[in-house]
Amino acid sequence: MSDSAPDTAAPAAPGDLALPLLGMIAYFQLAAFTRLAADSGLAPTLTQRLSLAGYARNALNRVDRVAGRIVELGGDPQSAMRPFAGVLVEFDERTEPSTWSERLLKSYVGYGVADDFARVLAEGLDPASREVVDEVMSDDGHGATVVAALEAAGADDATLSPRLALWGRRLVGESLGVVQRVLGAHPEVVRLLAGALPGDEPQSRLFARLTAEHTRRMDRLGLAA
Amino acid sequence: MSDSAPDTAAPAAPGDLALPLLGMIAYFQLAAFTRLAADSGLAPTLTQRLSLAGYARNALNRVDRVAGRIVELGGDPQSAMRPFAGVLVEFDERTEPSTWSERLLKSYVGYGVADDFARVLAEGLDPASREVVDEVMSDDGHGATVVAALEAAGADDATLSPRLALWGRRLVGESLGVVQRVLGAHPEVVRLLAGALPGDEPQSRLFARLTAEHTRRMDRLGLAA
Repeated sequence: MSDSAPDTAAPAAPGDLALPLLGMIAYFQLAAFTRLAADSGLAPTLTQRLSLAGYARNALNRVDRVAGRIVELGGDPQSAMRPFAGVLVEFDERTEPSTWSERLLKSYVGYGVADDFARVLAEGLDPASREVVDEVMSDDGHGATVVAALEAAGADDATLSPRLALWGRRLVGESLGVVQRVLGAHPEVVRLLAGALPGDEPQSRLFARLTAEHTRRMDRLGLAA
Repeated sequence: MSDSAPDTAAPAAPGDLALPLLGMIAYFQLAAFTRLAADSGLAPTLTQRLSLAGYARNALNRVDRVAGRIVELGGDPQSAMRPFAGVLVEFDERTEPSTWSERLLKSYVGYGVADDFARVLAEGLDPASREVVDEVMSDDGHGATVVAALEAAGADDATLSPRLALWGRRLVGESLGVVQRVLGAHPEVVRLLAGALPGDEPQSRLFARLTAEHTRRMDRLGLAA
């Protein structure tokens, strides 16, 4: 399939960098599928269970869409995904939610950071791959559903907001830790980042951007970031 | 939506009985989604993880297909599903798999019985609803995937077959217990069964049929039922 490996100046530059990024995105979406399906199974109402199941399915559909692009580029989807397998295990172990609200916030914050990370990196891709990433990252309503559910929960419980604000800080810290570990383990992603954010200290600017987006998301919930 | 509910002389007969059955099927498929997605998250290889995720998605697509028929009949999908919520909790608690092979066999045996139960009951439905059930219950390859995986596992481990045979007996016993509890708690399902298997002792004949189908499935695995 792919002896289209070489890099530098010209030929395979976009595809070569696109494959690892698309692999990472596909893996994160597969992880989102697993997580949202698990949340669905624990949902307190049938309505929420069905709703989260639908978002899980959307995530799996995204895996397929990204895998399709990997194939178009001459890659193998599983080979592209495999280097990222397990990258969220530590995150999950360190962020076990103790309530339904904490569980909802975890997916909102965690996937928020993962999606933003992918969006930034995609700025360094060839237009066709970037279009796939933009399409895959488009809002499917999951965020709005979480915001509505947490607002409803907060209306019943005045002590919820400060606790969730604290939990949100914990989650974003751990999420940025995942990004840090990915950058540490994947020089090809660092290279892609340099292309996406040309200039000095792309990593600092990446983290500034991820943090700003997180703050915006917490604002939507009326929570201090 | 629909005050198109009544049909024949005995006003609500088909639709009236179709709604609870379709609700039960939709709920079982939602449970299958949750279970297969959880199995996917625990799969030992990425290939198996993706494969099981796809079967989970199929199950959720079936929920939607059945829900669509419920709406056509003037019912509300969640209202139809809700009476069956929780019917598998005890089953799950009593059949916690201790190995990957046991986990695979659990879905194969458990959904096998649930699907056969639904198929028998569907024989008492109006043709359009029955067509939906037949469509939804069509083989999506999950069984063949499990059979192939267990055969491969058995080739590596001669002690596996007898242990799985024992586990299969345990699973079918618990699965038939679920059917028994559904019949005990849902007179409308008993009524539907009487229509599906007219004559004496429909429940005995139902259990005979479910047991025979289970034996056939275990044969496919080369295991004693």
